[in-house]
Amino acid sequence: MKKVNSKTTSGRMAEGVLAGERRALARAITLIESTRRDHRSEADVLLEQILPHSGKSIRIGISGVPGVGKSTFIEAFGMHLIKAGHRVAVLAIDPSSQRTGGSILGDKTRMELLSRQQSAFIRPSPAGKTLGGVARRTREAMLLCEAAGFDVILVETVGVGQSETAVSEMVDMFLLLLLPGGGDELQGIKKGIMELADMVVVNKADGDLIPAANRAAAEYHAALGLMRPSSPNWKPAVKKCSALQEEGIAEIWEAIGRFREKLWESGEIPQKRAQQAKAWMWNEIRETLVIAFREDPQVAAALHQMESGVIEGQLAPASAANRLLNLFLKPS
Amino acid sequence: MKKVNSKTTSGRMAEGVLAGERRALARAITLIESTRRDHRSEADVLLEQILPHSGKSIRIGISGVPGVGKSTFIEAFGMHLIKAGHRVAVLAIDPSSQRTGGSILGDKTRMELLSRQQSAFIRPSPAGKTLGGVARRTREAMLLCEAAGFDVILVETVGVGQSETAVSEMVDMFLLLLLPGGGDELQGIKKGIMELADMVVVNKADGDLIPAANRAAAEYHAALGLMRPSSPNWKPAVKKCSALQEEGIAEIWEAIGRFREKLWESGEIPQKRAQQAKAWMWNEIRETLVIAFREDPQVAAALHQMESGVIEGQLAPASAANRLLNLFLKPS
Ligand SMILES: Nc1nc2c(ncn2[C@@H]2O[C@H](COP(=O)(O)OP(=O)(O)OP(=O)(O)O)[C@@H](O)[C@H]2O)c(=O)[nH]1
Ligand SMILES: Nc1nc2c(ncn2[C@@H]2O[C@H](COP(=O)(O)OP(=O)(O)OP(=O)(O)O)[C@@H](O)[C@H]2O)c(=O)[nH]1
Ligand SMILES: [Mg+2]
Ligand SMILES: [Mg+2]
Repeated sequence: MKKVNSKTTSGRMAEGVLAGERRALARAITLIESTRRDHRSEADVLLEQILPHSGKSIRIGISGVPGVGKSTFIEAFGMHLIKAGHRVAVLAIDPSSQRTGGSILGDKTRMELLSRQQSAFIRPSPAGKTLGGVARRTREAMLLCEAAGFDVILVETVGVGQSETAVSEMVDMFLLLLLPGGGDELQGIKKGIMELADMVVVNKADGDLIPAANRAAAEYHAALGLMRPSSPNWKPAVKKCSALQEEGIAEIWEAIGRFREKLWESGEIPQKRAQQAKAWMWNEIRETLVIAFREDPQVAAALHQMESGVIEGQLAPASAANRLLNLFLKPS
Repeated sequence: MKKVNSKTTSGRMAEGVLAGERRALARAITLIESTRRDHRSEADVLLEQILPHSGKSIRIGISGVPGVGKSTFIEAFGMHLIKAGHRVAVLAIDPSSQRTGGSILGDKTRMELLSRQQSAFIRPSPAGKTLGGVARRTREAMLLCEAAGFDVILVETVGVGQSETAVSEMVDMFLLLLLPGGGDELQGIKKGIMELADMVVVNKADGDLIPAANRAAAEYHAALGLMRPSSPNWKPAVKKCSALQEEGIAEIWEAIGRFREKLWESGEIPQKRAQQAKAWMWNEIRETLVIAFREDPQVAAALHQMESGVIEGQLAPASAANRLLNLFLKPS
């Protein structure tokens, strides 16, 4: 085990995180969220120190349309886990939340019980302009939470554009909450999202919504049966629950346990995580390259004209790309 | 209309293409397929000359697992169109065909009738290492074929990795061929492919396969009903046909006609094409930036170690990315 150098700021911060101190964890996350260059180098040192102590949680992504009950579900699910002795961190990715400062922050009212628990840690989505940037900070926050001893990480996202894909690329298991009401509801789900799901949960299966929830579950079951499962060892499961009445929550956690067992045994989770980390590095590289390209003064000056030419069909896309690339990749 | 300068090589080539000369078209495609730098600048000049004369076809992508009957279908469909007075170009994207020199080339035996028609032009998939490179050349070949007066372009791809997505990003309409045999067949379809389809065709609906084809069509119809259509003006249609017995071909062409009419009227096709062209320019830029990055001597020297560190969990992905980017984006 790598020894932490407690004489540096990041060393002291790492010590606090590893000791499970909530305030150190919160400050460490603030550090990795910072866009200041000097903060970034400190963050890199911090991450290097905590990395050997990360990875010991189950990482669960949770998504679903607004109003499906994500916050209510996380409250009920989180309380269930805490009662069973787990420590639960709730993070979020929501690139649209920059103005409000994070969606689940305002939500603490809806996760009132959970947010008061010593064994829970709730952090809103970081602000940021690009999904990649927001996602990177949530990923790094996840590693910090693991190092601080949280053994269940829930990463929430509301279905905004590509954010479900971003979440699915950082978790072990992706859970999609759906509404009762039959297949029509799927129309609201963005393309390809169903296929990301390792588990589909029909929420609000209570009161007079029970028959609709049953029908919906059957339809989703049929739809999932038509899709190619992402793991040879796991067929996406369909569950029903009532987050409000706290029903079906235990069954969901049991199914997650089976998923975890099978995919750890088969070596799929470590393999998936290694691939995710590599893909993440390349995403960072690609995103930064394109930003540097766009910010190049010569490219910036010519870009609009080239793009218009392409859109209006006067310039072949590859020709426009080449001209711009020649401005950027000038021989040094 | 831009006048072609016939004194240059590319000017003469453009004239030949615009006159609909098959040999000029073939040579022009060979030019745009070349990876030589000087050829590329010639190709850019050529494309600029023919671009104002492109765009007047319906661009149809055709995909399906090996053996579903793509070649047989294209033969029957192409012959049907030619009899109706159309001029049909068949192109292909198959990044796996580099060794054999293109899959539909060997297939000319299966498209025997079509390949002998004056109104048909069949070109195998270009060779290439990256899907992006292969796709770019097929896209440009498509523009050349349009300039040469072909008014129906069929772009075939066998379901290899991301090639269906690449095809769907260059056509107006994406047609997915499926086998009879019920929903289980969908298991062989890669994730997300069903959702690309504007039309699903169950082929081999003949002989004792008819009942199975009917069942399959009903199941696909149900599955498509659960998905969000990509256009507000078109619900993906499910058709049956027998390419071998040339049954159902006319109905498919009629449905394509309705698709075309609705999406031209609503302005979706021109809009889609403009977006596709812009996305294509950016794909070129991204791909070339990453190639330049990988080929940078300092990056190349450090890459393996960084990647291993990330995969083994010793290095945070963003830190590794930053270190490599600092080598590449050195201040000039
Ligand atoms: N009947 C019923 N209502 C529920 C259930 N879960 C949540 N709700 C209600 O659904 C509404 C939305 O719940 P939230 O938990 O805020 O939903 P959300 O997905 O977090 O919504 P956003 O944060 O806006 O994306 C609230 O009025 C909840 O009380 C449930 O299991 N049954
Ligand atoms: N019964 C029946 N057989 C068909 C039909 N269409 C194609 N076939 C047969 O299916 C086999 C495969 O047909 P192809 O046209 O080569 O299929 P493909 O999709 O081009 O296959 P690849 O080029 O390998 O990807 C051949 O033996 C065809 O004769 C059809 O409509 N009915
Ligand atoms: Mg909420
Ligand atoms: Mg074939």
